[in-house]
Amino acid sequence: MSSLPVDPVTAAPTPLAAVRSGVPEHGAPPKYFQVKQKIDAVLDDLGPGATLPTEREFAERFGVSRMTVRQAIRELRLEGRVQRSGRSTVAGLPKLVQPLTLASYTEGVRLQGRRPGRELVVFEQLAADPALAAGLRIETGAPVFHLERLLLADDERVGLESTYLSAARFPALTDEFDPTTSLYAYLRGSGVTLADADERIETVLASPREVQLIGTSPALPMLLLNRVTRDRQGQPVECVRSLYRGDRFSFTAHLTGGEG
Amino acid sequence: MSSLPVDPVTAAPTPLAAVRSGVPEHGAPPKYFQVKQKIDAVLDDLGPGATLPTEREFAERFGVSRMTVRQAIRELRLEGRVQRSGRSTVAGLPKLVQPLTLASYTEGVRLQGRRPGRELVVFEQLAADPALAAGLRIETGAPVFHLERLLLADDERVGLESTYLSAARFPALTDEFDPTTSLYAYLRGSGVTLADADERIETVLASPREVQLIGTSPALPMLLLNRVTRDRQGQPVECVRSLYRGDRFSFTAHLTGGEG
Repeated sequence: MSSLPVDPVTAAPTPLAAVRSGVPEHGAPPKYFQVKQKIDAVLDDLGPGATLPTEREFAERFGVSRMTVRQAIRELRLEGRVQRSGRSTVAGLPKLVQPLTLASYTEGVRLQGRRPGRELVVFEQLAADPALAAGLRIETGAPVFHLERLLLADDERVGLESTYLSAARFPALTDEFDPTTSLYAYLRGSGVTLADADERIETVLASPREVQLIGTSPALPMLLLNRVTRDRQGQPVECVRSLYRGDRFSFTAHLTGGEG
Repeated sequence: MSSLPVDPVTAAPTPLAAVRSGVPEHGAPPKYFQVKQKIDAVLDDLGPGATLPTEREFAERFGVSRMTVRQAIRELRLEGRVQRSGRSTVAGLPKLVQPLTLASYTEGVRLQGRRPGRELVVFEQLAADPALAAGLRIETGAPVFHLERLLLADDERVGLESTYLSAARFPALTDEFDPTTSLYAYLRGSGVTLADADERIETVLASPREVQLIGTSPALPMLLLNRVTRDRQGQPVECVRSLYRGDRFSFTAHLTGGEG
């Protein structure tokens, strides 16, 4: 560490003078953001589920307007750090951590000691549009089952999932499958082994319909996962579009085999 | 498909009557959202990079106020469907698709035919706080190098990355490493083989400092990736916090080995 500056008195290494290559640095952060950081520290002390002081109390404590407090709390709510609970605001629970694996939503939530659930929204037959046909490797216009379900964790609505399957491949689905149960369990029972999947993750804004179904705020960033799952023969089994509340979910991946 | 209704005239299967289990359906979507969908269709016709009609033209074409058009375009911008270009608005490019692998940002962007770049913001030495110490498996207070760099794609700022490494393990880093080049190449050259990583993805709002550095809008949802990368001996090599513009990036994962 020869290049590090050393404090002339203590001879201990002092922080390396930060190199800043012409990138502009901000001055003081906006007032609402300073308040947000202060409330964030309060939340650490309170712990999950605890009721927050009122806007008025925060405004007095930090010497700012209630409007400023409101903007800070709005951002904290969009990020899941606080939640509404009736008329008050409480410290949020940690985000659910869902592994990116072939396992189902049900298994992922259960692993975290939460109670998974599904609520049926739509179970219908459609004609495959070109994108869906390409995903499922069927003809455009071929019949497809569309299963749309709300995802629950401890009875809270946390996401919305649309699954598309070829009706020709699973003709008995509407007769045999109970849409409030695990589709993957049904597929296993039908002799289908899910072998691999390609998944794409991005962030989107919920549409008004999705806002209403999930019961969230329109400005809330959502995590959108699109997946094609294939069987052992490499044949696509399902196309899935899952939307998760960005304030309630995070995803983890274990990465291996790189040469750097 | 015995349970599907069949059109009595054509004997062709008709859409399965959608099952709706008491979940409320919306009525007409809000006006701004209808306009958003119409502009979205216009974008498909225009193609990436094309200049959009003005707000006034859209307002006249769709018979709505300019305010309504502005709200629609604001959401399309947050989602990356349109971008500002000088004083006009243009159709956005497709999102960059970055694979979740041990490969570096540089390699991921190059794979898509874009020119990767990095711009140094900060190169400094810090004392490890408890979280960082746990991540790197070093003592709290031990010296850590912090390398903060802007991520560029074709000279556009698309993200901000902070990498933390143990200063005791890489004492020559400040002397030997050029922060505008690939850190992974430097590590390889130092005999370190990156073997696996745990990564966590979530969506957050950019802080004012991040907004200013990346040059984006405060309301823009960002994708936050936190990673710990380990060597062949299982020893953590780096902790990385990467922030990517949610309107410019998506991530993909290939999932295998599941039993469903």
